[in-house]
Amino acid sequence: MATAATAVPSAPLKSQYEAHYDPTLILKHPEFKLLSDDAPELQNKNANIACAYNPAHEVHLMNKPRPKVGFGEAVVHVKATGICGSDVHFWKHGAIGPTMIVRDETGAGHESAGEIIEIGEGVKDLKVGDRVAIEAGVPCGQADCDPCRTGRYNACQRVVFFSTPPYHGTLTRFHAHPAAWLHKLPDNVSFEEGSLCEPLAVALAGLERAGTKLGDPVVICGAGPIGLVTLLAAHASGCTPIVLTDLVASRLEFAKKLVPTVKTVQIQREWKPEDVAEKIKEAAGTGLKIALECTGFESSIRAAIYSLLFGGKVFVIGVGPTEQSYPFGYCSANEIDLQFQYRYANQYPKAIRLVSGGLINLKPLVTHRFPLEQAVKAFHVAADPKQGAIKVQITD
Amino acid sequence: MATAATAVPSAPLKSQYEAHYDPTLILKHPEFKLLSDDAPELQNKNANIACAYNPAHEVHLMNKPRPKVGFGEAVVHVKATGICGSDVHFWKHGAIGPTMIVRDETGAGHESAGEIIEIGEGVKDLKVGDRVAIEAGVPCGQADCDPCRTGRYNACQRVVFFSTPPYHGTLTRFHAHPAAWLHKLPDNVSFEEGSLCEPLAVALAGLERAGTKLGDPVVICGAGPIGLVTLLAAHASGCTPIVLTDLVASRLEFAKKLVPTVKTVQIQREWKPEDVAEKIKEAAGTGLKIALECTGFESSIRAAIYSLLFGGKVFVIGVGPTEQSYPFGYCSANEIDLQFQYRYANQYPKAIRLVSGGLINLKPLVTHRFPLEQAVKAFHVAADPKQGAIKVQITD
Amino acid sequence: MATAATAVPSAPLKSQYEAHYDPTLILKHPEFKLLSDDAPELQNKNANIACAYNPAHEVHLMNKPRPKVGFGEAVVHVKATGICGSDVHFWKHGAIGPTMIVRDETGAGHESAGEIIEIGEGVKDLKVGDRVAIEAGVPCGQADCDPCRTGRYNACQRVVFFSTPPYHGTLTRFHAHPAAWLHKLPDNVSFEEGSLCEPLAVALAGLERAGTKLGDPVVICGAGPIGLVTLLAAHASGCTPIVLTDLVASRLEFAKKLVPTVKTVQIQREWKPEDVAEKIKEAAGTGLKIALECTGFESSIRAAIYSLLFGGKVFVIGVGPTEQSYPFGYCSANEIDLQFQYRYANQYPKAIRLVSGGLINLKPLVTHRFPLEQAVKAFHVAADPKQGAIKVQITD
Amino acid sequence: MATAATAVPSAPLKSQYEAHYDPTLILKHPEFKLLSDDAPELQNKNANIACAYNPAHEVHLMNKPRPKVGFGEAVVHVKATGICGSDVHFWKHGAIGPTMIVRDETGAGHESAGEIIEIGEGVKDLKVGDRVAIEAGVPCGQADCDPCRTGRYNACQRVVFFSTPPYHGTLTRFHAHPAAWLHKLPDNVSFEEGSLCEPLAVALAGLERAGTKLGDPVVICGAGPIGLVTLLAAHASGCTPIVLTDLVASRLEFAKKLVPTVKTVQIQREWKPEDVAEKIKEAAGTGLKIALECTGFESSIRAAIYSLLFGGKVFVIGVGPTEQSYPFGYCSANEIDLQFQYRYANQYPKAIRLVSGGLINLKPLVTHRFPLEQAVKAFHVAADPKQGAIKVQITD
Repeated sequence: MATAATAVPSAPLKSQYEAHYDPTLILKHPEFKLLSDDAPELQNKNANIACAYNPAHEVHLMNKPRPKVGFGEAVVHVKATGICGSDVHFWKHGAIGPTMIVRDETGAGHESAGEIIEIGEGVKDLKVGDRVAIEAGVPCGQADCDPCRTGRYNACQRVVFFSTPPYHGTLTRFHAHPAAWLHKLPDNVSFEEGSLCEPLAVALAGLERAGTKLGDPVVICGAGPIGLVTLLAAHASGCTPIVLTDLVASRLEFAKKLVPTVKTVQIQREWKPEDVAEKIKEAAGTGLKIALECTGFESSIRAAIYSLLFGGKVFVIGVGPTEQSYPFGYCSANEIDLQFQYRYANQYPKAIRLVSGGLINLKPLVTHRFPLEQAVKAFHVAADPKQGAIKVQITD
Repeated sequence: MATAATAVPSAPLKSQYEAHYDPTLILKHPEFKLLSDDAPELQNKNANIACAYNPAHEVHLMNKPRPKVGFGEAVVHVKATGICGSDVHFWKHGAIGPTMIVRDETGAGHESAGEIIEIGEGVKDLKVGDRVAIEAGVPCGQADCDPCRTGRYNACQRVVFFSTPPYHGTLTRFHAHPAAWLHKLPDNVSFEEGSLCEPLAVALAGLERAGTKLGDPVVICGAGPIGLVTLLAAHASGCTPIVLTDLVASRLEFAKKLVPTVKTVQIQREWKPEDVAEKIKEAAGTGLKIALECTGFESSIRAAIYSLLFGGKVFVIGVGPTEQSYPFGYCSANEIDLQFQYRYANQYPKAIRLVSGGLINLKPLVTHRFPLEQAVKAFHVAADPKQGAIKVQITD
Repeated sequence: MATAATAVPSAPLKSQYEAHYDPTLILKHPEFKLLSDDAPELQNKNANIACAYNPAHEVHLMNKPRPKVGFGEAVVHVKATGICGSDVHFWKHGAIGPTMIVRDETGAGHESAGEIIEIGEGVKDLKVGDRVAIEAGVPCGQADCDPCRTGRYNACQRVVFFSTPPYHGTLTRFHAHPAAWLHKLPDNVSFEEGSLCEPLAVALAGLERAGTKLGDPVVICGAGPIGLVTLLAAHASGCTPIVLTDLVASRLEFAKKLVPTVKTVQIQREWKPEDVAEKIKEAAGTGLKIALECTGFESSIRAAIYSLLFGGKVFVIGVGPTEQSYPFGYCSANEIDLQFQYRYANQYPKAIRLVSGGLINLKPLVTHRFPLEQAVKAFHVAADPKQGAIKVQITD
Repeated sequence: MATAATAVPSAPLKSQYEAHYDPTLILKHPEFKLLSDDAPELQNKNANIACAYNPAHEVHLMNKPRPKVGFGEAVVHVKATGICGSDVHFWKHGAIGPTMIVRDETGAGHESAGEIIEIGEGVKDLKVGDRVAIEAGVPCGQADCDPCRTGRYNACQRVVFFSTPPYHGTLTRFHAHPAAWLHKLPDNVSFEEGSLCEPLAVALAGLERAGTKLGDPVVICGAGPIGLVTLLAAHASGCTPIVLTDLVASRLEFAKKLVPTVKTVQIQREWKPEDVAEKIKEAAGTGLKIALECTGFESSIRAAIYSLLFGGKVFVIGVGPTEQSYPFGYCSANEIDLQFQYRYANQYPKAIRLVSGGLINLKPLVTHRFPLEQAVKAFHVAADPKQGAIKVQITD
């Protein structure tokens, strides 16, 4: 039953996907084991080895049973996976927000692409050998779920998001996935690009809801992976001028190689938000309508607020501390809106079109590559700021 | 697989609902039979009698097997069903558009509400005795269906819309329906009002996409059932002034009883569209932004076009002849947009809220009532303009 | 010159209106004087007496020269003026925000309506005897002003907003105003209703940008004058259910007389925002999409944030303390947007249509009335919470 | 007075601009004369020579008095002017639509840029020597004009649009223009590019209202000047794939040089609209959401309708025959909306930003160039399809 006038929503039920991908089925399986550095499975290309974090803040390899293909599913040989900041965060801090908590061994990775090696019953549009990007969040899709029925499936409360606890991730050799959530890659899109469609989907969801349009003057705060993907997407959508801020000069230089026309502002730690805003406005040379905030830091959000024209919008893609203080009076007198993004819905096909159509070139973002067997090393590089990694890829 | 960059959509597959509600399962069932006026089933309150039309342009009663409840379904004892213009059209003309063709006995009715008498496995939020409105269109809901995944399920190509050929309708005593598409009625909403939520959903979908807002001056063309429901909804949404047009004085008088502040224009057949537009503008006394066109006639649409301010919109809710001629040059020089509506998505909960909340009073629309056993008579009244029926209800 | 690609906006120039309505022309005029209680001007119906506040936090009457009508202007005999919270705030606190500061005697009042007694050259659509509402904010209207040229004139930096320092207000007997910013009142709209179109314009601007639509379930925070006008407007726009919160029981009772279907929550001071949110959700009985926040208090805004569905919006109409702390993490994980309103643009004609069309009844809001000569007493009543005033009107 | 509830808009008054730019002031001036091929004025660089059409369908040069600079104006030495299809149409056919009729000698040209040579009183942001694009439509800008007050000044009924009868155009040596409607050109934007900002503004207005977004798959119908500028703008906004149709192979080849990824469909005259639609869908390889129709021909609009997904939009930028016939039933069953564009508002600053920012390269569009003294020859080239001109520029 859909929402009726007098019904208070009841407690959410388990969906079929929640049961089907129950991680304890793996953790209790006889083939499941943690792998030492010299484990023989590391030499076996048929072993379903994967990378996991646990509540003790360890990251290591594990062996999982090879998945059996279910109805409507395909088994993918994962060929490329990017490490996301959230992967590192789960490893180091054990939780994101009040509900996503690492309570057991939890497979990492949700930015993946690969090749189909097995097809289940009821799958019509895919075949063995197809190259696909994996959309890691699988919503329940039931008609009694308001978000799913209305096209905002990123709000589904019964979603299985692979690598978000308790579900295992896609940084594994073999992964069984609902075929409807595999997105075919054209020949001119590589596995790595397919895996990078995940952070691109985040940026695209942000731009779509932020409503950036051709010719909009914008500022992007933060030149980390999400900031850079947002820069590529904003440039592809015709935003101009684009101002980009960061504390670190090398990141801004990296950005200038991606989009030479970007105007950069290197923030000094002692600057107040109002000062930063002045530098942003100066760099822009014209009034700014939208700030795409990719750091989640209060000081950066405040600088964004002060940098905009009356009627502007600060769109926060980044994730940050729970509590933040904003200049209410200023926002009110200048109609500055604050808007937030949580994951994405319906962005993968568009992301692939943009990459395939040559509008967005994700390739330069990959700064480091490791084979699956060295995934632990990859994690240590991704977590170390001194390495200067933008995007670390694990391939197989 | 969702839409990928290089894939041309393949032929649609049969969904599980299309198979489950296959009408031939009923037509070939041993209990199926057409009923004569003195059939004993008419005396049997347990018989699943229903009303049907056929390719010979006949309307009559039939006996169907009583439905068995399936997984996720509930069986509803249908208590009230309204006759829609499309029901009459299928009976008299045998088709709507190029694809919806009456090829066999086809059960009528899709504006229904009733009481739940049986609950299938897997249904959590409904119980026997609940009073519900039946949303007659059941989309496939699959993740590989772009319209379903993006919240525009009225575009689903695999929809089962009860009473649209070949599927049987809800003008039947007992009907098995997916529980997610049954909408619970609060105590202060009657079965008749529940059934009238269907035409209300059409009007609400139109208003939502037309973007009417508080204080908008609008014209509604046509005072038939859809025009009148649109009038109620436009009034509830704060449109003012509202001008209403029709050829028939009695309909306009009926409308004035529903919404006393409505300004009416009785169109004379000899008036040209430009003349009609002048009368509309005169009645409005202020510039008009939106026309809600509920007749589908070319002359009425043209009048609507000429009645609007620069930048206005003619939103066509009505259905009409295939080919129509419009004043392109005028639309172009005045940025008059034309927009169209096909069925509805996500409107039932809102419709019920509006009725239950006292914002829309549908009761006066019912001008005639018949028991289920006299459904054929009800159809003849609905089809006869001289009877002056607005909405004919069949109750059980 | 409009904004060009490389131009940083220069300092705003004085517009013609800023010069024309320069308040020092009055303050230095020989007829200008402050009035004692027994001043003879109080007996003279031709004296242009007005009410003013000053930096010493005094409110009193003054005598101003009678205005001469200019080109494009009309002189209005002001017949009804409502006291706004901002009038009281300027009197008691001497400033609103960092820029609006009472530095001299400043005439009060910006919610006014009256009768035209003189017409200047170049005015075509008004005549002596016309009854009009006065739109108190007169933007520069120049083509080089981005806000004016793009229809968002509430952002005009060169606006003359009568009663906002330094400009004198419309709580005066005779007021000269640009004819284009006088809005004719239909016969069925009284002067008092005309004056109340000002707070209504604030609420309408909020609803328009908040995007409330027919059938939207909303919560309104605060049952003061703006909250109550917002309630009337939200009800007229078909929002349902509507939950209304306040600390004071009598205000909620007043609201229930205005809109009997409103669901009220009386907040207890010890409740945390999360608790308030639970009460709001319970009262609503269905998920809420939009909060119309009319208090500007941090605790109320936080409660609003927690009361909404994923994807909801807190629209802040109220004005509050400069700095506020919000639950960033919660907003981010639930895509709760924050939006703000500053004054209004293009709302007066709509406000008058809604009142004239019977969709919004403002009359019950007036709880106290005083003649112009007793304006000071009126201010003391408006400023005293114990008087329970909703809207105090001064008539002449 | 703004629109009040009961007021029917009165007949529009003459605005100050209509009086100020009254063309009869020139036609009756003693220095006005038509120029023969050997007129001495053609040798005089201080003569204000201009190009005009008349009711006899002639195009020729004329001498006009040199304009005196007025308050708020600047005099521009026009350096580059493009010939628009409408210029040719006025010459050859004497009218566009029912109201724009060539009744006397009428100066041509509205796509112009130049250098400021004189500044009037009251102008602050421009100086002699500044390089500017001329926005040729000067709306009345009065607060009693609903379109001007609400930011849609392309609907202003009192606009002076230079080169639209009766007003003289900007294809003249010296032109006095309100400073607010001159847009400063950055150093990296040439006069020719400045003049091409006019057709670009048309395309940008279309895209803005059509709502094209990053990653949208679109079809553009017609590869003439407006189609090509629309192609450049759609590409800059990240639309992909882009399908482009035309009857002429050479135009499609030209387009492929501008945007190599465009997918072209050369239409054969014998194809029915449904056939064309199939070819468009085939070329796209994915479902299309928006058609940008730049021909105005019924057959092309029909093909566009049939080429879109359910819920698509045909946005008509082109101008065409007054009456057209559309497949109403198909539009209705597929929610295909039709939308139209008339000129533009608030597009020049954005156009200049896009050119200056390197997102749109207009230079290749200029296929022919003539000095001002040979403007008549330029017109003959522009009007002759065999010359294959895309954009003819006249420079001085």
